[in-house]
Amino acid sequence: MTFALIDSLRKGNRLALSRILSQVENRTDVGVEALEQLFLETGTAQKIGITGPPGSGKSTLVNAIARELRQREPEKKVAIIAIDPSSPFTGGALLGDRVRMLDLQVDKQIFIRSMASRGALGGLAEQTEALSQVFDAAGYGFILIETVGAGQSEVDVVNLAHTTIVVDTPGMGDDIQSIKAGILEIADILVVNKADRPGADQSVSHLRNMVGMGYAKRSHAGKHSLKDFSGKAAEESSSEDWIPPVLKTVASEFKGITDLTDSILAHAAYLRESGRWNEKDKAAVLASIRHQLIVSFLQDFNKKVPMEMIDSLVSKAQQRKISPSEAVRKLLAYNQSDNLKSSE
Amino acid sequence: MTFALIDSLRKGNRLALSRILSQVENRTDVGVEALEQLFLETGTAQKIGITGPPGSGKSTLVNAIARELRQREPEKKVAIIAIDPSSPFTGGALLGDRVRMLDLQVDKQIFIRSMASRGALGGLAEQTEALSQVFDAAGYGFILIETVGAGQSEVDVVNLAHTTIVVDTPGMGDDIQSIKAGILEIADILVVNKADRPGADQSVSHLRNMVGMGYAKRSHAGKHSLKDFSGKAAEESSSEDWIPPVLKTVASEFKGITDLTDSILAHAAYLRESGRWNEKDKAAVLASIRHQLIVSFLQDFNKKVPMEMIDSLVSKAQQRKISPSEAVRKLLAYNQSDNLKSSE
Repeated sequence: MTFALIDSLRKGNRLALSRILSQVENRTDVGVEALEQLFLETGTAQKIGITGPPGSGKSTLVNAIARELRQREPEKKVAIIAIDPSSPFTGGALLGDRVRMLDLQVDKQIFIRSMASRGALGGLAEQTEALSQVFDAAGYGFILIETVGAGQSEVDVVNLAHTTIVVDTPGMGDDIQSIKAGILEIADILVVNKADRPGADQSVSHLRNMVGMGYAKRSHAGKHSLKDFSGKAAEESSSEDWIPPVLKTVASEFKGITDLTDSILAHAAYLRESGRWNEKDKAAVLASIRHQLIVSFLQDFNKKVPMEMIDSLVSKAQQRKISPSEAVRKLLAYNQSDNLKSSE
Repeated sequence: MTFALIDSLRKGNRLALSRILSQVENRTDVGVEALEQLFLETGTAQKIGITGPPGSGKSTLVNAIARELRQREPEKKVAIIAIDPSSPFTGGALLGDRVRMLDLQVDKQIFIRSMASRGALGGLAEQTEALSQVFDAAGYGFILIETVGAGQSEVDVVNLAHTTIVVDTPGMGDDIQSIKAGILEIADILVVNKADRPGADQSVSHLRNMVGMGYAKRSHAGKHSLKDFSGKAAEESSSEDWIPPVLKTVASEFKGITDLTDSILAHAAYLRESGRWNEKDKAAVLASIRHQLIVSFLQDFNKKVPMEMIDSLVSKAQQRKISPSEAVRKLLAYNQSDNLKSSE
């Protein structure tokens, strides 16, 4: 069953792809098995994260990039993963998707997948990475990952991308810029979309200033290159020779998309030549191993330690008779002694 | 040393409080020890989370609430934890804090602490909870936790609060409302600040509609009451009898603050009467135990499993010779066999 599905996926069957994506997203046994097999065929796709505040026109921009990438490199397929932070019942995403589908449905080499960020089992970043791997193995050369906002979960998601595009618009809100300084740090490419509005040039020069002052200096390429699973601070790489360009686009009129796509492809070339591509790939593999380790540990722990013991310790901690640290020491001691017992 | 500090803290010494907060934030041995002792004296403070988009005037609102709470319940001290999502070198927070300090410095029973969200060791929510516990033990009856944005990390932070206030302003952005539907779900109280601007009444009635339609229906009170550490979905509580009020404020002119404070105090009473206060407390204790369990596991794992083995498996996975799952199985098998060895 799984084998037949994977085989269809390899042959380019969109229905098989869709079904495997669902299985992976729902973490069924079939999904887990498929992902394990498909992983061995991954590593070639360029993952491109696109983030920015609501109203910055990200979806239109993503559509435009997808179309341009298809024209530029016709032999490569394009996947779009749209992460929708709203709750499942708002319907906003559905409407947005319908518009998007109409726009792109002519091209069978573009595949669009929406993912709700709430309720994602086991972390949004892990989920996105898993879907990316399926697309990668299915021969999609470009994977566009669109996410709203600038929270930590979005940062986690785009950290797994090779190329991160941060989108802003002219003079939104009270400030000259609506994106926060913090988000600049993760940008490989900065885009001022809706650049036909007043204030676009000001936004561009403001962002260029920020870049010039070092606010957008990349450091996260080395962030995950830690060998220590406990999460100690990693060394930063010292060579920083990609300066994030600041580009103007009017995505709805397809203006500026050629330059933007040039930058996306140039960034991929830079990553490969500088060795960063490998670093990022390693970081993704490491993050996946770390995540699965924790999940396995907790599952094992739940099997071994009786519920009554956990309940009783939580109760005591809630009554302030013991601290959470003491509860943890007791739980670990039990878990350990059970390991010993079972080995006799 | 730790004892003397804790003793000073108990006597209300602000310098001792400040030093312990730093030790806890930096997770020094003194900090860990202090937190363990202080935890036993926690459980009485009302933790109040305030979130909303940039430009909604949260800081001014938080200041106003702090002043009103001090007048209303003069015997209780007020702590403010301001979570600053921008990078450490932007300086924005510092300026904001200076204004804030000037405003509140007359009252020695108000203590303000800023925390950078980036680089927080071991998770923002855990860090915020740890600082809250110090304030709680130090006799602060109200802890206001201010956070920007609506990302997952903000949701995690306010989930640890007893009362969550979501702040919006009239007609920001393209939409009638700038806050996303998803964020409504976590609101106990909704505030339209800057309500002297045009469109305030529309915003209020829009939000009231949303509340009426069930978008703001609370469900997260039961979210953490899972007994299973592996993160399986928990049962939702069925009784939902707090309907989030939608209030207008002009924080800069201290308008609407009395009503808002009424709601904050009413919500605390509701939580206590309904048993929800206990549930939330239990959720916080459980989250803390879960977090410490994972940290302990990873530290132990790093001690036992040789770096060379991890490196070699990560390499093989990166070369697509094995899957991350297979790497994890091998690492766990080694970890397990080492447990057995050390028990002989």
